[in-house]
Amino acid sequence: MAQPVLSQLRINRSRLTQSLLTLAQIGATPKGGVCRLALSDLDQQGRQWVIEKAKKLGLTITVDQIGNTFMRRAGTNPALAPIMTGSHIDTQPTGGKYDGNYGVLAGLEVIETLNEHQIETEAPLEVVFWTNEEGSRFTPVMMGSGVFAKAFTLEHAYAAQDKDGKTVKAELNRIGFLGEQIPGDHPCSAYFETHIEQGPVLEYQKKTIGVVPAVMGLRWFDCIVHGFEAHAGPTPMEIRQDALQTALIIMQSVVEIANQFPPHGRGTVGMVQVFPNSRNVIPGQVKFSMDIRHPDSHVLNQMTALLQNQITKVAKERSMVIDLNEVSYFPPCNFDPSCIHAIRQAAIDLGYSHIDVVSGAGHDAIYMARLAPTGMIFIPCKDGVSHNEIEDAKPEDLEAGANVLLHSMLTFANRSA
Amino acid sequence: MAQPVLSQLRINRSRLTQSLLTLAQIGATPKGGVCRLALSDLDQQGRQWVIEKAKKLGLTITVDQIGNTFMRRAGTNPALAPIMTGSHIDTQPTGGKYDGNYGVLAGLEVIETLNEHQIETEAPLEVVFWTNEEGSRFTPVMMGSGVFAKAFTLEHAYAAQDKDGKTVKAELNRIGFLGEQIPGDHPCSAYFETHIEQGPVLEYQKKTIGVVPAVMGLRWFDCIVHGFEAHAGPTPMEIRQDALQTALIIMQSVVEIANQFPPHGRGTVGMVQVFPNSRNVIPGQVKFSMDIRHPDSHVLNQMTALLQNQITKVAKERSMVIDLNEVSYFPPCNFDPSCIHAIRQAAIDLGYSHIDVVSGAGHDAIYMARLAPTGMIFIPCKDGVSHNEIEDAKPEDLEAGANVLLHSMLTFANRSA
Repeated sequence: MAQPVLSQLRINRSRLTQSLLTLAQIGATPKGGVCRLALSDLDQQGRQWVIEKAKKLGLTITVDQIGNTFMRRAGTNPALAPIMTGSHIDTQPTGGKYDGNYGVLAGLEVIETLNEHQIETEAPLEVVFWTNEEGSRFTPVMMGSGVFAKAFTLEHAYAAQDKDGKTVKAELNRIGFLGEQIPGDHPCSAYFETHIEQGPVLEYQKKTIGVVPAVMGLRWFDCIVHGFEAHAGPTPMEIRQDALQTALIIMQSVVEIANQFPPHGRGTVGMVQVFPNSRNVIPGQVKFSMDIRHPDSHVLNQMTALLQNQITKVAKERSMVIDLNEVSYFPPCNFDPSCIHAIRQAAIDLGYSHIDVVSGAGHDAIYMARLAPTGMIFIPCKDGVSHNEIEDAKPEDLEAGANVLLHSMLTFANRSA
Repeated sequence: MAQPVLSQLRINRSRLTQSLLTLAQIGATPKGGVCRLALSDLDQQGRQWVIEKAKKLGLTITVDQIGNTFMRRAGTNPALAPIMTGSHIDTQPTGGKYDGNYGVLAGLEVIETLNEHQIETEAPLEVVFWTNEEGSRFTPVMMGSGVFAKAFTLEHAYAAQDKDGKTVKAELNRIGFLGEQIPGDHPCSAYFETHIEQGPVLEYQKKTIGVVPAVMGLRWFDCIVHGFEAHAGPTPMEIRQDALQTALIIMQSVVEIANQFPPHGRGTVGMVQVFPNSRNVIPGQVKFSMDIRHPDSHVLNQMTALLQNQITKVAKERSMVIDLNEVSYFPPCNFDPSCIHAIRQAAIDLGYSHIDVVSGAGHDAIYMARLAPTGMIFIPCKDGVSHNEIEDAKPEDLEAGANVLLHSMLTFANRSA
């Protein structure tokens, strides 16, 4: 096959979609989704399938001590650190075929396209899958990339247990992915991650490519309202201390505060536990989660302050004790301007419609952004649905994202040329 | 012992409280409460203890086919139907010492007081304990009195299963309380029930005796709001279909509607289930209970109509499907004026402070009111707390309620005299 002009190079859509559908068979669910929890037997099978594929493409495999797996294609200048791409192949319990898997297999498709056309790059290229991005079986989430970026220690990750008491270290060992390389002891000159949007913006705006300038920061809180449990019949309305009715005011505030900061403010109450949760008992205690997000850390702190003020006010007005505990904090993450530019330019050159889309969800790229210039490419997913067995994406969009990845990586890999 | 003037007759406080504490040993919990579920081994032991006590008082025992147990003291005129009192001895899983048990043992204390003073009555007196008032193990609640009043059939009650699949009929048979008398085939000329208030009104108003003119009607509904489950980060606020944020408007309306009908209107959301109930997922569905009560059936229907209108309005405004299903309906129950008068007069004659207190909770007396003139006597319970191991009542209040019972029953038992 003749070597084309680089700008005319395109990945192979049917090969990429076939690859996604094949990997999705490992842990396939009856409803068309995938259940391949981190470090399970199925994760092991998925990892081996990906590695076999990489070996057929001539890539060199390195596994680090947290099971992150790097698949390397040599460059013409071995002194250069690799241009890296990847994501994860573990899924939610009722996950889909594309979340994570697309980022890994798009990377391998880029390699296969280059191999096919015998195109060498100056810098080496690497495709990586990170261990336990989802955090469904073991917390914290984004575990492999987090250890790699030293966001937390290897020991902390090793000690994490699933609900049966099995540890990450034991499970890594059991499935044969307790590697030798020290996490982070692996060069990287730039990192790109291709991902389904997991939101509805691209579909809603009818755009093919989302150029991701930033990932929202998030703050997670647990709120507990302490009322007084009493019988729903004999207790007059005016002397009740109904924990739920007080909690509802705060739950509404979470959304109202997010609405004060359009278009990127987010506020969600996703989890509610009512005690004793009995039809004819006035709730004595209500625990609920609050999830607030914004890409600007100042605004995120402002939202938090408004929420705290509102809780203080409601507690005083209602004479109730309300506990507020922060559970998690991820600061906003701004991606690298040169990566963002390369992605936007690739979309333009390839003729794909595109807009900037701030990521509302976390990704391994957040941690990689601490180590190297990083960028993310989004493509639409059906109805914005992800973390769901009905997660879906169009073949032409999967193709477009991989083509943008190909040309973004080529730009960086041949930068010194 | 000389026979006192009837009006000077009083029950024995320490004997009554001792009796309550002794029965409370059967199924006693470490926290000071009682767990004696209907038709369990402990219920059997409790029943036998009560029957032994009744036999020592010379009472004749009759058990009907649903296990209701009648303990009869003969009157001087055997042609008269008995004046009956009673309640239940089954408890909630984490119940207290007084709910139900007080009504039964106050009745036996009345008998013992009369025996002690060798006082005969014209009409016979009966103390009854009804089977499975609580409904914790088997539904429907107030099962024994309900079958007795033909609110539902014996077969319906027999077929009820606990969570292990054991039926009421099999359990009645196993504990030896599958009696022969046909339920309801048992005369009764008036029924009185003494009970802790299970609410805070008497304590709040510093009154000893609650004269109960009526029991509130109640309507129970399940409401399901159908939204669209989506990721809390990437989904913009303006295109969300957050089932919880819609549900909470209706939850607030339940209380607002009850507040429109003081002092007796009640509105409670006690049970909430959020799906999928995950911190970073916008709730796709929320199911919750609604409990509305009022002693006037017209007002209760008006409250229901307001609630239905509000749900229709919210569903339209938010473009969401909201299901509303009625789960239970107990119409309001007005007690008999002559019983109410006798109770109020007894409180006055005995020098106890008293007020009218509408019962917010259901009692066996509701079903008995369908068959005979019926009245209820309430006494304060600590902090209004019931269905709880910390349920408590003062000895002097327990005594006062039993004295009111004694004199109310005497008024009726010697009515023709």
